[in-house]
Amino acid sequence: MKLYTYFRSSAAYRVRIALNLKGLDYQAVPVHLLREGGQHLMDDYLTINPSGLVPALQDDRMTLTQSMAIIEYLDEVYPLVPLLPKDAVGRARVRELAQIIACDIHPVNNLRVLKYLVKHLGQSEEAKTDWYRHWVIEGLRSLEAHLARNLGTGLFCHGDTPTIADCFLVPQVFNARRFDIDIDAYPTIARIDALCVDLPAFKAAHPSQQPDAE
Amino acid sequence: MKLYTYFRSSAAYRVRIALNLKGLDYQAVPVHLLREGGQHLMDDYLTINPSGLVPALQDDRMTLTQSMAIIEYLDEVYPLVPLLPKDAVGRARVRELAQIIACDIHPVNNLRVLKYLVKHLGQSEEAKTDWYRHWVIEGLRSLEAHLARNLGTGLFCHGDTPTIADCFLVPQVFNARRFDIDIDAYPTIARIDALCVDLPAFKAAHPSQQPDAE
Repeated sequence: MKLYTYFRSSAAYRVRIALNLKGLDYQAVPVHLLREGGQHLMDDYLTINPSGLVPALQDDRMTLTQSMAIIEYLDEVYPLVPLLPKDAVGRARVRELAQIIACDIHPVNNLRVLKYLVKHLGQSEEAKTDWYRHWVIEGLRSLEAHLARNLGTGLFCHGDTPTIADCFLVPQVFNARRFDIDIDAYPTIARIDALCVDLPAFKAAHPSQQPDAE
Repeated sequence: MKLYTYFRSSAAYRVRIALNLKGLDYQAVPVHLLREGGQHLMDDYLTINPSGLVPALQDDRMTLTQSMAIIEYLDEVYPLVPLLPKDAVGRARVRELAQIIACDIHPVNNLRVLKYLVKHLGQSEEAKTDWYRHWVIEGLRSLEAHLARNLGTGLFCHGDTPTIADCFLVPQVFNARRFDIDIDAYPTIARIDALCVDLPAFKAAHPSQQPDAE
């Protein structure tokens, strides 16, 4: 398996965690989002993913993009170390938590969106940072409320083993810290993140541990 | 089952299509996003969904948010008229297509984001419209490339029966038309959309057919 990845992409970071939790070997193919005007926008990569986004996973069956679709696929094809609970309600909840991050927080703060703010809307670095922080704070507040009120929350986002939701939570918290957001304001998130980041699968997926890390 | 919905919310529209395709009865509870400063931000609704977003689905087992999680849940609990193919590769592809819309197009153009552009970044209506169109055009271009190059594309986004991907495609095309985007520039999308919108399940889910339509 090949994973087209960028060390700091939080969508790629999610997939790296899932691959590591399942103990799956893969070849990391770095796609540098900032070098040469963005390697993800060059023809070679657009042949792999016409969306020009990382990550993309290639195996002998398919080329697949979108981190959530990739992790669900891995979970179906490699059922050992399941990343979704067995019951429909639990599965729904894990997907919901992951999608709060995947749909409500991350896309608005994606690199291409931040670039648009500066290039087309003439926004300052300060306004760009405020924007970033606003959506993260809004999103983490909402995620914390979802986690804190539900009895399904255990040591991890759902129950006492890592699920897809944790694969999404940790990269989002990593991003939030880069923008100086006080994670302790979200006690459930902070507690789960602290547990996860000490596990080998999460450690090995960390941006600083990637071959293309700077 | 209760669906908290807003006639023009494209995320709610997706779930309505899925419910209709499966022939499931539900009670529509309108949450007006513009009235009274936004009914979705009032305490009553925040108790249901702390994220303050529609849709939310309630049954006797759970309250669930996030359109993709809701539709996957419906597909697991009511397996008749499946909305995902049986094979892992097909399932992965359908999720990928849906997520291109759910993660790459829709969130950046959500109401709260458009409001932020005007209120906090002082952008004009014209700049807001340019923003909206930019992300839709970028996203549809990418979705068209994914659809056009893959042999899995049939009468519908994947194969010859509707899947979750079609539940996502039609509301996104509806939104694009509201902003005068030329859908014919994306021939595969235009063809699939034209087929879908004539089907009863899609027709009944259309914003104009909702009890809260204006």
